[in-house]
Amino acid sequence: MADIDRIRNVARHVQREVNAGHEVAVVVSAMSGTTNQLVAWARDAAPLHDAREYDAVVATGEQITAGLLAIVLEDMGVNARSWQGWQLPILTSNAHGSARIDDVNGEELVKRFRELGQVAVIAGFQGMHKETGRITTLGRGGSDTSAVAIAAAIHADRCDIYTDVDGVYTTDPRVVPRARRLEKIAYEEMLEMASLGAKVMQVRSIELGMVHNVRIFVRSSFDRPEDIDPHQNQPPGTLICDESEIMEHPVVSGIAFSRDEAQISVRLVPDKPGVAAAIFGPLADANINVDMIVQNVSPDGATTDLTFTVPAADYARANAVLVKSKDKIGYDHLDGSREVAKISVIGIGMRSHAGVAAQAFKALAERQINIRAITTSEIKFSVLIDTAYTELAVRALHSLYGLDK
Amino acid sequence: MADIDRIRNVARHVQREVNAGHEVAVVVSAMSGTTNQLVAWARDAAPLHDAREYDAVVATGEQITAGLLAIVLEDMGVNARSWQGWQLPILTSNAHGSARIDDVNGEELVKRFRELGQVAVIAGFQGMHKETGRITTLGRGGSDTSAVAIAAAIHADRCDIYTDVDGVYTTDPRVVPRARRLEKIAYEEMLEMASLGAKVMQVRSIELGMVHNVRIFVRSSFDRPEDIDPHQNQPPGTLICDESEIMEHPVVSGIAFSRDEAQISVRLVPDKPGVAAAIFGPLADANINVDMIVQNVSPDGATTDLTFTVPAADYARANAVLVKSKDKIGYDHLDGSREVAKISVIGIGMRSHAGVAAQAFKALAERQINIRAITTSEIKFSVLIDTAYTELAVRALHSLYGLDK
Repeated sequence: MADIDRIRNVARHVQREVNAGHEVAVVVSAMSGTTNQLVAWARDAAPLHDAREYDAVVATGEQITAGLLAIVLEDMGVNARSWQGWQLPILTSNAHGSARIDDVNGEELVKRFRELGQVAVIAGFQGMHKETGRITTLGRGGSDTSAVAIAAAIHADRCDIYTDVDGVYTTDPRVVPRARRLEKIAYEEMLEMASLGAKVMQVRSIELGMVHNVRIFVRSSFDRPEDIDPHQNQPPGTLICDESEIMEHPVVSGIAFSRDEAQISVRLVPDKPGVAAAIFGPLADANINVDMIVQNVSPDGATTDLTFTVPAADYARANAVLVKSKDKIGYDHLDGSREVAKISVIGIGMRSHAGVAAQAFKALAERQINIRAITTSEIKFSVLIDTAYTELAVRALHSLYGLDK
Repeated sequence: MADIDRIRNVARHVQREVNAGHEVAVVVSAMSGTTNQLVAWARDAAPLHDAREYDAVVATGEQITAGLLAIVLEDMGVNARSWQGWQLPILTSNAHGSARIDDVNGEELVKRFRELGQVAVIAGFQGMHKETGRITTLGRGGSDTSAVAIAAAIHADRCDIYTDVDGVYTTDPRVVPRARRLEKIAYEEMLEMASLGAKVMQVRSIELGMVHNVRIFVRSSFDRPEDIDPHQNQPPGTLICDESEIMEHPVVSGIAFSRDEAQISVRLVPDKPGVAAAIFGPLADANINVDMIVQNVSPDGATTDLTFTVPAADYARANAVLVKSKDKIGYDHLDGSREVAKISVIGIGMRSHAGVAAQAFKALAERQINIRAITTSEIKFSVLIDTAYTELAVRALHSLYGLDK
């Protein structure tokens, strides 16, 4: 949220839902300027600060928005009250700064829906550690996580997430102008989309929704409530739900891609037990996140090549780690490239359709796009190609699987 | 507090106390800019806002300072943690915006002093309503009240109040350059000084201190910790304490004055039961605070004059109320003046010394200062005079009672 005007806009959305006869709990994040100020103060106080105190300071951002939204709602004649994380309570682990929600008590909220018709305005991003009673924060995307956890606790029909986009698209519309907004997407698909760079929601919130079967509706926070047609079945947005709720499942739901990859190949390593551990152990120790891993069956049974990807920013560091471990691993040489992109094709329909990936390989070959590596899983496959071909490949696959129409 | 630098200065004071071997609980107020911003947002959200939500919003100011001070202290190597009002808890009435403290639980703080040597940093000005569990604020001067209440709960040796002055003076130094800072002042005297316009501390905090026998030390927040001589018995400031702790009690401790008064005389009212009620009832209904009241024994037994003072700002309104009630009261006419000042002479020593007031009347008469009205109580007396003579009268009385030396 940016300022009081955005809070007013949220309040009108809430009023619209109340007028439509719904019981509403609304989870708020901080105004962006406020969070920046709080973080700056904490840094100014000490560069290395106690995470518990930092949480107490930054959690005020959401507390302020919750109080202000309740004030605006009351002013509109909507019965509302604000709730801090500790008031419900929302109990969490004590990993300050990135706490995990353990339990949400929604009883009082449900009672107030029924008895008072009261809207609950809840400070997102925060909770209370169940033993120390101290304020915790949930870390990045925490307000979405709060919303999903609260929706689960009160058995909400739906959890609306207001974001800066109006839903989940078949791919990035900036690359493929014919990309379409999906009406529905299954949790599993959305998880793949999210972890592959479609930055609509954090993986954690979607996982939580999947576990508790919370229907999550991604919609735009820029929509004006007065523009929404109350007779429409569903306002613009994408519903993230159980696959059983999606009647006609396409084979492929979306194409994700990431240019933020670098490829490293370890050449002529001894093909014997323990070599993978020798390579990936030191990388894990250096906190480098390894993504695709490809190891082929060795032709001679003595040596093999091993290829994997790391975030482009970690490319130099990963190489240094491997050079340091050269004797231990026993490889011949390293090669690699920072100019690679990963293209992923995602769809629950793949489970029941054979040959989906083969079609892609053929389409890419016809366009002279060399595939560096391939990985597959139950509902997606990914190919690693040269960065220069990213747009061409994404557009080709988008058409191939009928997502253009 | 103004900013991080002021927080750092407070932290150095705390460190100094810790180094001197004390167990320290420090109560903080909000940074002034923060409170202004929070109040502005709440007003912007709605001109008439729910007091409970307003409290939730403005209480974040103290929460932020508490977290930041704890961060700074930790950074200095001082073991510290922040406490919100609801965490101790500090339980209050539900008069949001001006809640009364009902109970403070200091057990955990004392335990942590003993076991961890941990400094408690407590958000002032706030508490939690004991039944609803909602955040309350204490209103004006609330942080001082928090400090005194917490000092009582943990049986502190002393409650230091850092203010923008370095203590309590015999009178306003801007009027009498020879005014002296008092080393000690009794609660009762300070209550009279405070309610008469010496704006060092709110009456409420002093009352609380008196009831729980908390020694309150008023000192300057501008003092730099490094300038304080650790070998000095007491740093610069004034101790507000029980009168038994003050060895040599002067007859008069201070001269207070207020120019913010207006006098109204109700002339020729029937001298019969119920007439005072007929005058002051309507004024109370109009929320006008009546201070001095003087009614003389009537010479003829039929009619009398009744004089009282009201805040200068309410003068016109008070007159209008009385004009409206003229028939009911049955007076002849009204007169009065906004150009009056009240001078008060305060001292516990008056209890045992006769003729203290008489000396003042003589000294004022010698300077041709006309006394409009007189009221007396056990430890003070006040005279109402023309505003123009304020400085002259205060200086004369300051000398008369030996306060210059």
